[in-house]
Amino acid sequence: MTARIGVFDSGVGGITVLEALRKVCAGADFVYLGDTAHVPYGTKSPEQIRTLSVACAKQLVTRDIDALVVACNTASSWALEPIREAVGPSLPVIGVVEPGVRAALAALPRPEAPLLVLATRATVCSGAYPRAFEAEQPGVNQYLKEQACPLLVPMIEEGWTDHPILEATLKEYVGRYSGQPGVALLGCTHYPWIQSLFERAMPGWVVVNPALQVAREVAERLSLPKVENPETNASTLLPQGNIEWWFTDLDAVPQFAFDRLTPG
Amino acid sequence: MTARIGVFDSGVGGITVLEALRKVCAGADFVYLGDTAHVPYGTKSPEQIRTLSVACAKQLVTRDIDALVVACNTASSWALEPIREAVGPSLPVIGVVEPGVRAALAALPRPEAPLLVLATRATVCSGAYPRAFEAEQPGVNQYLKEQACPLLVPMIEEGWTDHPILEATLKEYVGRYSGQPGVALLGCTHYPWIQSLFERAMPGWVVVNPALQVAREVAERLSLPKVENPETNASTLLPQGNIEWWFTDLDAVPQFAFDRLTPG
Repeated sequence: MTARIGVFDSGVGGITVLEALRKVCAGADFVYLGDTAHVPYGTKSPEQIRTLSVACAKQLVTRDIDALVVACNTASSWALEPIREAVGPSLPVIGVVEPGVRAALAALPRPEAPLLVLATRATVCSGAYPRAFEAEQPGVNQYLKEQACPLLVPMIEEGWTDHPILEATLKEYVGRYSGQPGVALLGCTHYPWIQSLFERAMPGWVVVNPALQVAREVAERLSLPKVENPETNASTLLPQGNIEWWFTDLDAVPQFAFDRLTPG
Repeated sequence: MTARIGVFDSGVGGITVLEALRKVCAGADFVYLGDTAHVPYGTKSPEQIRTLSVACAKQLVTRDIDALVVACNTASSWALEPIREAVGPSLPVIGVVEPGVRAALAALPRPEAPLLVLATRATVCSGAYPRAFEAEQPGVNQYLKEQACPLLVPMIEEGWTDHPILEATLKEYVGRYSGQPGVALLGCTHYPWIQSLFERAMPGWVVVNPALQVAREVAERLSLPKVENPETNASTLLPQGNIEWWFTDLDAVPQFAFDRLTPG
């Protein structure tokens, strides 16, 4: 039987995670729920984030899913446990924070290299990344910094992904980390859309998109046939699973996202 | 008895309207409701905007108010009639669109001067400004243009009100209107905070903040003693009314707004 994977995001950013899931989890089908009626989560209070996330998770559970991926970093940071409590122990719930931490640590060029998490303000405030890094590799937090980049999401949603104003804003956020290079973890699902701009703004840094690691862990949890190197593997040319799209406010889906609603 | 005026906004932008109300409506008290749990409205669908606005209006009505000012342009554009229906005919409900239109027309240097409304995307989509201009002065719409400026609100809320990136973004939005100068109407409550930047970006244009006109019309509707020239009149030194603050998500009130919560 075909596996059905629910993907929850606060808006359209989770499409970057969905793209990786489709490449790695061969043959699975997907139900994507974007809470566009309440986006952005990144500027909301923990209480609001939890209430909204649990409501969305409960909606997704009604669609007969075999696993729930919380693609939104803000929701993963604040609401993973409340979601798990709400959906019950039989449904695997996978967030993006822990897989992202594992991907970042795997990319470290040397043990004492700087680690930088780029995220929304709410994610940074949550402390979820430092907790997860410390749990995964005790002591590593001495090399860890976090940077909130609140204007990047509105600019990306405006379609300014190759605009000099976005580049200038990026420089404002990450310019100060120009010393010793290390690993920068994209802790917000929108950021992979401008990964090349991060790489240009942070010469020498390894910029990590956690989506592939998330997808690998989902495939493992569901014991799905897993495409190991989706970027180069010919099996990505096989037919990929169906996607059911679901938005709490369809009119609020930004124009640029429509072009990405059928990722290749 | 002291008049109590309810001021509804999607977030903190309505503080610019509240400031004018306190200057003009001598002696009134205020209840300000900012729907920070659901901000921004400017990227939402009409249905969402109406549902949220009506819910907030109903909350404000429970606070024993004598008039309801819908300070948010997006809510005024889409939800004024639903709000009026919800609160009933005995409570005056005053939006910002019609007063803004009257203020813009009063500022016209000559009848055929260009008119430009600067607003959120949802406000522009609503067509509320063209309708109001046409109702107020038939035929004037041939001189009217509207420009959505979606990135200004997040930048202002980020506290970048004197940042070169905000100036560059502003130029991106209004640079094309550099020909014959006319009247630019600030159709979003955040924009008065950067009025001087608009004036610098649009040389020769009259930049109109509708808040004073809104306040004058509220004073008239409630037959309140009205301070005619609040900017110069000594009576502004008199004690001003109390403000009750109310936010649907207090944690989501941006830092910069806290400095403005007790306007002078």
